[in-house]
Amino acid sequence: MKSQVINPVIAEVFRGPMAESRHRGAFAVADQNGRIVVRAGAFNGIFFPRSAIKAFQCLPLIESGAAARFGLNDAEIALCCSSHAGESEHVHVVRSILAKAGIDEICFECGAHMPTAREATYDLVRKGEKPLQVHNNCSGKHAGMLALANHLGVTLLGYVLPDHPVQRVVADCLERYCDVDLTQAPVGTDGCSVPTWALRMDRLAMGFARLTDSGNEAAQWIIRAARAHPFLIAGTGRFDTRIMQAVPRLFIKVGAEGVFCGSIPHAGLGFALKCDDGATRGAEVAAAHMLAGLDVWDQAERETLQAFAREHLTNWRKLDVGDVVAATLD
Amino acid sequence: MKSQVINPVIAEVFRGPMAESRHRGAFAVADQNGRIVVRAGAFNGIFFPRSAIKAFQCLPLIESGAAARFGLNDAEIALCCSSHAGESEHVHVVRSILAKAGIDEICFECGAHMPTAREATYDLVRKGEKPLQVHNNCSGKHAGMLALANHLGVTLLGYVLPDHPVQRVVADCLERYCDVDLTQAPVGTDGCSVPTWALRMDRLAMGFARLTDSGNEAAQWIIRAARAHPFLIAGTGRFDTRIMQAVPRLFIKVGAEGVFCGSIPHAGLGFALKCDDGATRGAEVAAAHMLAGLDVWDQAERETLQAFAREHLTNWRKLDVGDVVAATLD
Repeated sequence: MKSQVINPVIAEVFRGPMAESRHRGAFAVADQNGRIVVRAGAFNGIFFPRSAIKAFQCLPLIESGAAARFGLNDAEIALCCSSHAGESEHVHVVRSILAKAGIDEICFECGAHMPTAREATYDLVRKGEKPLQVHNNCSGKHAGMLALANHLGVTLLGYVLPDHPVQRVVADCLERYCDVDLTQAPVGTDGCSVPTWALRMDRLAMGFARLTDSGNEAAQWIIRAARAHPFLIAGTGRFDTRIMQAVPRLFIKVGAEGVFCGSIPHAGLGFALKCDDGATRGAEVAAAHMLAGLDVWDQAERETLQAFAREHLTNWRKLDVGDVVAATLD
Repeated sequence: MKSQVINPVIAEVFRGPMAESRHRGAFAVADQNGRIVVRAGAFNGIFFPRSAIKAFQCLPLIESGAAARFGLNDAEIALCCSSHAGESEHVHVVRSILAKAGIDEICFECGAHMPTAREATYDLVRKGEKPLQVHNNCSGKHAGMLALANHLGVTLLGYVLPDHPVQRVVADCLERYCDVDLTQAPVGTDGCSVPTWALRMDRLAMGFARLTDSGNEAAQWIIRAARAHPFLIAGTGRFDTRIMQAVPRLFIKVGAEGVFCGSIPHAGLGFALKCDDGATRGAEVAAAHMLAGLDVWDQAERETLQAFAREHLTNWRKLDVGDVVAATLD
């Protein structure tokens, strides 16, 4: 976010009668030609999209023929695009991808962490087990990347590095869909060790719109898989899962540091949003509010989306203490 | 924060070469007369100080004679001012307060939650135990409030409610030290169910400066106890604990939603800081940077504080990915 624009407040956190905290941010909704339908703040600034672009990190797996060759099914493609909660169902599907591609878990380079789902963590603790790399919320994406490396006939070692063929084809995919040149783009290392390139927000929104092209079979597979398996995209109680279960015509994906991206296939639109301060709670309600404001939903969908634009807060005794509420922009 | 001032960026989160997220905020450093020594943003706006004012929630326990009557020691007073991590040492001291005051744990009205210390949580899970109210990070404060209610001879039931005598004396204490009138102040319910009144930031900084008055024995006890027991104020790995261990002349206390308050007794100063978006990570580095910039430290202290103004970020494979860095204000 190099822009000097001061982004508007996109969400407020109320405690009793007063806004206690507030979140600023920017967003863009675009069509396949890059026409901006709705925008806020530094909508054309660059930002790190993080895990919100897992669809683009998965596309080469399909476009290359690897997914078909290994016989991956919709659930497995959904996992490749997920930030999963490490629950047993997620772990099972990740291992299925690896088995089909003939890859050992030891090849993962994502690192291990406890499942983000609390009960899954407690299960490991009760069993006296340590978390494995397969529990990493990005292990589905990594399984897909390893399968791609295998299909390409390149070394698996270092598949997370920016100059590895797997990451080169991911960068190429982003460049094609988003009309950007990443060769000079700032690049950071993501939590799971793959590169994250800084992209223009409006271009990324356009890229997500282009995923909705009905002639694009690879992209259609990803969106169909994600919408068919919202639980696999995230997990128990998670925003992405709940909102896609509630509004099945929506494809949305969270990214670390307050990012959401996604597509509205029936309307041919894509979107990208970032909360300046990296807060997921702010990004969630703001994304729901932004989506609800688009003239592309039926009334039930719009009301459902608007309900996601307010998150009620209770304390340890379940007393009402406040709300996280999307701000209405001028 | 009702002010229309747009607060400055007080901390940036770098990922590789680029600031990925940023935190805005305001702060005030004041002396006992309310003279502002350093300030940023809406330094005279109102905000919810949350748990950062536990010193003022504990003062009536001492001023009333309750602490002396029940024979509380420094460790117990420190716990009354803590947001502890629920580790065994914390739980032990909280129970000691209750025992001395003749109060049963069932009287707590803070609610139960898992310890904030991960290992303490895992210990409970391994034993198949559920968290108790004594594990609530505010249970020390609540033990002190219950002891005060007992000493005052009033009902313990509802001691968390704004019109209970315990909370009335807490409000009175804040009004006296901060020269504010809380009768019309916005009031919210805190995570532990006690009221949190919105206060002017600069007045609260002055209140913390007044705690340093050498003639104020009650306040001296609190600051002495906190600085003697930084582990009891927070816990393993926690910012408050680490920075007070590293700079023993500092008294500092975190509050939820990105708040820090504290006192610098040898300089007669007090301070209050809030990160607009509620992020503790931003408030931590900004508070350290603000403190390091004050002309009240020796060189070693200043360098130590400045080291706390940068938090290095690594990912799941311990690779360097970035830093949370305090911003230098104009």
